[in-house]
Amino acid sequence: MTYQTIPNWLMKRADLTPDRIAISAPSGVLTFRQLHEQALGLAEKCVSLGIRKSDMTAILASNSLEMVIFIHAMKYIGAKTLLLNTRLTSHEMRFQLEDAGVKTLLVNEDFLHTAKEAQVYLDIKIHTFKEVMQTSKQTFDWIKEFQLDNIDTIMYTSGTTGNPKGVMQTYGNHWWSAVGSALNLGLQDKDAWLCTVPLFHISGLSILMRGIIYGMKVVLHEKFDPSLANRAIKEEGITIASVVTAMLSRMLDDLGDEAYPSHFRCMLLGGGPAPLPVLERCSDLNIPVYQTYGMTETASQIVTLPPEYSLTKLGSAGKPLFPCEVQIQTRQGEKAEAKQPGEIVVKGPNVTEGYLNRPEATNEALQNGWFHTGDIGYLDEEGFLYVLDRRSDLIISGGENVYPAEIESVLLSHPLIIDAGVTGMEDEKWGQIPCAFLVKQKGAFLTEEEVKHYCLERLAKYKVPHHIYFVDGLPRNASNKLVRRQLPLLLEKYVGKQDEH
Amino acid sequence: MTYQTIPNWLMKRADLTPDRIAISAPSGVLTFRQLHEQALGLAEKCVSLGIRKSDMTAILASNSLEMVIFIHAMKYIGAKTLLLNTRLTSHEMRFQLEDAGVKTLLVNEDFLHTAKEAQVYLDIKIHTFKEVMQTSKQTFDWIKEFQLDNIDTIMYTSGTTGNPKGVMQTYGNHWWSAVGSALNLGLQDKDAWLCTVPLFHISGLSILMRGIIYGMKVVLHEKFDPSLANRAIKEEGITIASVVTAMLSRMLDDLGDEAYPSHFRCMLLGGGPAPLPVLERCSDLNIPVYQTYGMTETASQIVTLPPEYSLTKLGSAGKPLFPCEVQIQTRQGEKAEAKQPGEIVVKGPNVTEGYLNRPEATNEALQNGWFHTGDIGYLDEEGFLYVLDRRSDLIISGGENVYPAEIESVLLSHPLIIDAGVTGMEDEKWGQIPCAFLVKQKGAFLTEEEVKHYCLERLAKYKVPHHIYFVDGLPRNASNKLVRRQLPLLLEKYVGKQDEH
Repeated sequence: MTYQTIPNWLMKRADLTPDRIAISAPSGVLTFRQLHEQALGLAEKCVSLGIRKSDMTAILASNSLEMVIFIHAMKYIGAKTLLLNTRLTSHEMRFQLEDAGVKTLLVNEDFLHTAKEAQVYLDIKIHTFKEVMQTSKQTFDWIKEFQLDNIDTIMYTSGTTGNPKGVMQTYGNHWWSAVGSALNLGLQDKDAWLCTVPLFHISGLSILMRGIIYGMKVVLHEKFDPSLANRAIKEEGITIASVVTAMLSRMLDDLGDEAYPSHFRCMLLGGGPAPLPVLERCSDLNIPVYQTYGMTETASQIVTLPPEYSLTKLGSAGKPLFPCEVQIQTRQGEKAEAKQPGEIVVKGPNVTEGYLNRPEATNEALQNGWFHTGDIGYLDEEGFLYVLDRRSDLIISGGENVYPAEIESVLLSHPLIIDAGVTGMEDEKWGQIPCAFLVKQKGAFLTEEEVKHYCLERLAKYKVPHHIYFVDGLPRNASNKLVRRQLPLLLEKYVGKQDEH
Repeated sequence: MTYQTIPNWLMKRADLTPDRIAISAPSGVLTFRQLHEQALGLAEKCVSLGIRKSDMTAILASNSLEMVIFIHAMKYIGAKTLLLNTRLTSHEMRFQLEDAGVKTLLVNEDFLHTAKEAQVYLDIKIHTFKEVMQTSKQTFDWIKEFQLDNIDTIMYTSGTTGNPKGVMQTYGNHWWSAVGSALNLGLQDKDAWLCTVPLFHISGLSILMRGIIYGMKVVLHEKFDPSLANRAIKEEGITIASVVTAMLSRMLDDLGDEAYPSHFRCMLLGGGPAPLPVLERCSDLNIPVYQTYGMTETASQIVTLPPEYSLTKLGSAGKPLFPCEVQIQTRQGEKAEAKQPGEIVVKGPNVTEGYLNRPEATNEALQNGWFHTGDIGYLDEEGFLYVLDRRSDLIISGGENVYPAEIESVLLSHPLIIDAGVTGMEDEKWGQIPCAFLVKQKGAFLTEEEVKHYCLERLAKYKVPHHIYFVDGLPRNASNKLVRRQLPLLLEKYVGKQDEH
């Protein structure tokens, strides 16, 4: 068994296609040669500030050309990169920094305040992007070959336990994800991929990786704006864009009855099945929608539905990419029959090797090479995947994964709250929004506003419950475990009540 | 370190794109679903005849739909496949069968006679294709996942030693070769690859592998015919074709001044640098020529020159494919400077892990992950590879590799020949043809015709020297080693003499 190495991707691109555009962002455009030179130059500055091979380094920034160069610079050093969600509170950030053993935090000036709050008393150096850029360079023996087994990036995700876990993404995971996507979508000379999703999410980062591996232009937006996204498709030769349903709806609203130019060949739609009206609208406008199913642990899409099936296989996420496999397992751990629901388990070289410093969680999730997603679904007779429930209780709000257990543990830390249950509620704008059912201490005085305020200090805004319902008790099973799947029923009751008012 | 597995490629294709055409051959057309079903059905017949997982099985056939199904059937069983060159004599074939430890030889009726001659007294079962097809099926637990490290195919190649060696090609070698090619050439919905080169050569087999991995139509010709090849490009939607210079010249002659349709996007040209007039002719006709450098040990192309450089970088083989690396090493084993000639060494996941049962030859060829090609070349300042001498003495005749040492050892086995040296001579039709210089025993009577006849019994026809020159002595160095690179000078002298007559 030989270990697989591949030449440093950006270095290789700078050699093969130096003058093609690598990245186009509001603050500038770089060819592959320029991006390579800037990443290497920046790496030399980071080394001069003490960042070393195998160090755990965190990056905290929103999408920008600078952030892209920083992400690549870490690969030249061989440092592992924790990508921090900018919407986290300092509380949440601190947990990730400590848990991952971060030595240096590289931060865009905008987030310096939060970064400092998160780092108080921790032995972590903070450098702002500007500070790094003004440092003098120190030459070093930079990484010319990537070892596919080495960890490249870490992204945190929560599960049913409430404690976020660091998903390890190797160079190989990113590589195979990019290759699997190319074998599915093809690869054309004129391809250009629009990235309006955050680079600290796998949906964004995977676009960056594909750009380098394919030699393809990536058009990067600082944040999602439907009319800017539409304009990029129409005027900047975009052929592929990654979106979630909420984004697609807003783009369609902005678009009106206009069609996209014919070079636009793929709207890659993640984050849960799209509603029929949206798909029909796309079909009317000849927008080729590829629905996908994927997660941080699979380095982006692992199952995709080509547009020719989007209406006939309505609600399906499609079939596993070429190097990947999907199975449905019954509670007894057996392979389910067609149409029989069970846990979705996936396999493939793009699947993570586990969670950072969490051997138990890793062993639980990865069994015989199969990753247990916790999501419920079934395969039809033709092998198309239908996702019934994402991680049984996962809330997807505006493309962000929201884990009820994480919110509940914050709610339960409030001295006046004795029980809490969180569930998702349908929402036109965000897809879903989190809502909480609370049991107060007897006679305690606690308002909805107070609870929200308490959460806001401890949770990223998108995780804070939009609605709070005070109840007398929560559905619990014999072993006193919260039966979260009964909460939506409770919700119907309460929302019904509200409507009556 | 996890072992990499990928779903059985053809099975996966039959799931993802069942109704696309997989292969179009003179005797029929099969979709991916049909090819999968036929390969599986044939595998069940082979199992019923006793072929088992990990068995070494040989296939002896010329290009045909049947041969394709047999090649795939072996992968369903998990048997290793030795692909035999149909032009070998029974002598040569016997050597390979014994050396590889073949248990079963599957042969197309046309070659049954040679096969039987080759197998005399060996413990090898022979089954004709027809015989296998008429056998009843036996269900078995067929291979649903390929292990990338497992050996898939074996192809023999000679070196400087004269003894052919079996190159081990793993599933991973073929996979990475296909992926590297896609990242270079792109991958389009309408792609169709023309295969007029033998499937028992890596140039042909690699097209078959790409077809399955990409979900792309392969148009298979039984043998190369310039006008049939041109017709396929014009009428069957061919977008890519693999050729060697001699084939390309004949296609250009047949083409006249007509251009290919615009969908034809790549003429992949292997087997040595193309002469300027051929490239200029292609440039005039807007034929996009990608020159390549590769070998059996690299599972086809490893270095490619895109058409935009074909005239400005005349004579160059290009740059290494994305997952691959090329270096020039001096005699001292150091990395050469730009423009400094030395041995071409290559690295990449498409490179063989060695020669079957030849640990010494393997260790000599593979050092620190670098494969020593034995070819001489240099890199220019921009990193473009120029091949100066293929394996210093390799003769490429009509796309077939001819190794002087192998011919010399046959010549030396003749009782009246006491010394022999073989070299290549330029030839308009074949590119090069082998010629021999012989030293006879004193006073012996031996004619050119007798020598050729002797060779014909022992060597494939394309290896038999076209011209025989009897000389008094051969150039040898201090340690009495034949200085083969001085033979071309001798050739000039002799051919000059002939012309004077």
